[in-house]
Amino acid sequence: MTAVEFLNTLIPTTLEKKFPLEFQVKQLRKGEILTNYGEVEKRIYFIKKGIIELTILAGSEEKIIDFFFPNSFVCSYTSFINQQKSDVQVRTIVDCEVEYLNRFEVQAAYDQSMTMNKIGRLLTEQMYIMKSDREKDFLTKSAETRYLELIEKKGELVKLVPVNRIARYLGIHPESLSRIRKSIS
Amino acid sequence: MTAVEFLNTLIPTTLEKKFPLEFQVKQLRKGEILTNYGEVEKRIYFIKKGIIELTILAGSEEKIIDFFFPNSFVCSYTSFINQQKSDVQVRTIVDCEVEYLNRFEVQAAYDQSMTMNKIGRLLTEQMYIMKSDREKDFLTKSAETRYLELIEKKGELVKLVPVNRIARYLGIHPESLSRIRKSIS
Repeated sequence: MTAVEFLNTLIPTTLEKKFPLEFQVKQLRKGEILTNYGEVEKRIYFIKKGIIELTILAGSEEKIIDFFFPNSFVCSYTSFINQQKSDVQVRTIVDCEVEYLNRFEVQAAYDQSMTMNKIGRLLTEQMYIMKSDREKDFLTKSAETRYLELIEKKGELVKLVPVNRIARYLGIHPESLSRIRKSIS
Repeated sequence: MTAVEFLNTLIPTTLEKKFPLEFQVKQLRKGEILTNYGEVEKRIYFIKKGIIELTILAGSEEKIIDFFFPNSFVCSYTSFINQQKSDVQVRTIVDCEVEYLNRFEVQAAYDQSMTMNKIGRLLTEQMYIMKSDREKDFLTKSAETRYLELIEKKGELVKLVPVNRIARYLGIHPESLSRIRKSIS
């Protein structure tokens, strides 16, 4: 799915499906940093292929905020919104193909286009729901349940994520994840 | 501050400051449930006075997602967006004065008005940042740091929240919170 096809799924009326901006395509290598700690976010990416992770530093320890899979938008979105320095890092964990828009184009379109404001609102609503769901999962579900849901939702793709990074994402020790994986299989 | 005054702070250009909808005012008693578990969210509230909490059930235990103070919008926003049953409860913890809009009015305005879509986008961006900040706080800060930041930001208002609810919000035992409070004073 392309970024425009994805955005069209958000918009209920066909009249507004003409997207006012053009995405650029980019190939990325595994381990490439799209946005570093302290950098201001200048782009928003749509993942066509691959997996991208969002991390944050807690002292010297790196914590994983989330993984992003194909057909989703990703960037340091807080920094993209307020143009403050990013406290998160955006990094590919396998080779990726992405489409992206530059922030200045998006902002210019927000000044003029109702469609663009509607799309921006609908996309931000989806990103809000994702954040909200993850918060609720943390408050109400065990690491085992969250792991099972991750492999149920993302299937084969999860196998491409190094086990120690999945453990870090779940907030548990790699040995605890091994135990969970054994008890499942 | 009124809801419209607050929304005007989000919009940079004076031209767009004519808000297309009219808020209704309501007085609420302490302990009033605005949105119950399983209900579909029909309104969005702006807090003029008072404090409102958002809770979620983890089995039989109620967890506190967040407190909302004056000059902020609150509702079961995920349910407001997707009109699915709410898995959170919205409840006053002191007497409150709120302004609110009905969802059907907001949706009708989204169909027609660029200003309304822009405001909706900007407000959702702010709500996204709040959610994102809270997630980062959880991943990187101790309960003590989060408590200190809460009283620094909200000052006198925090004293109106029952201590056991603050402890629940921080995810610690009430006794641990007492220890933190003693070590501060």
